[in-house]
Amino acid sequence: MFTRIDHIGIAVEDLDASIALYDEIYDLKLVHRETVEEQGVEAVLLDVGENHVELIAPLGPDTGVAKFLAKKGSGMHHIAYQVEDIESEIARLKASGIVMIDNEPRTGIRGSRVAFLHPKSTGGVLTELTEPAKDHH
Amino acid sequence: MFTRIDHIGIAVEDLDASIALYDEIYDLKLVHRETVEEQGVEAVLLDVGENHVELIAPLGPDTGVAKFLAKKGSGMHHIAYQVEDIESEIARLKASGIVMIDNEPRTGIRGSRVAFLHPKSTGGVLTELTEPAKDHH
Repeated sequence: MFTRIDHIGIAVEDLDASIALYDEIYDLKLVHRETVEEQGVEAVLLDVGENHVELIAPLGPDTGVAKFLAKKGSGMHHIAYQVEDIESEIARLKASGIVMIDNEPRTGIRGSRVAFLHPKSTGGVLTELTEPAKDHH
Repeated sequence: MFTRIDHIGIAVEDLDASIALYDEIYDLKLVHRETVEEQGVEAVLLDVGENHVELIAPLGPDTGVAKFLAKKGSGMHHIAYQVEDIESEIARLKASGIVMIDNEPRTGIRGSRVAFLHPKSTGGVLTELTEPAKDHH
């Protein structure tokens, strides 16, 4: 069961310029900043009620997000649904024919456990399952 | 104040095929279906907790969503933040330098009042404010 939209991931060229928009103008609270080397990004989380915006900027030109920006420009990159039990959700989706990028959860931002669905199974939408760490929602 | 992510708008070629994914496989509840002539789309809303996914399919080849699909393919089209008082949010954003597509609210799906921000002000993200009708959240 997907319990809410956990976050929307937005790819940006300039993290600080984007924070100025989301934090200062939209007035969303910046709650976390992290370099996720494995995914080649520096990322921040901002609260929107119980949901989040995740701004992601590439660490270098060979990263997936840098290639996304070069091809499509800044904009929405992925949608993440929150789940309570990520292993059972992965199993349920695979049984329904969904192809997963991650057949096992891996560590995402702020200690979450995450798994991506393959866009060829999702109408082109890069889609993530997120099980938050116990001290976050 | 943005109180939550109201919905993510996802542009699709085939509404019924997409409903099969979101309703039957993801198990999100389809709660509304509407033809929005003004925006040139047929749209459905599905619940994800207190958030929604809005699937939008073009009514004809000259619509904005048909052009989006031709250029970018199916995928995330816009993000909508929920607000309680849309006029005051429009005024607040304009005072911060945001250029609005809609300087006054207009009627959106399911009786909501909506206004779009111009993507040139938002780092390329088509962004909507949504004040839901009183009988919906």
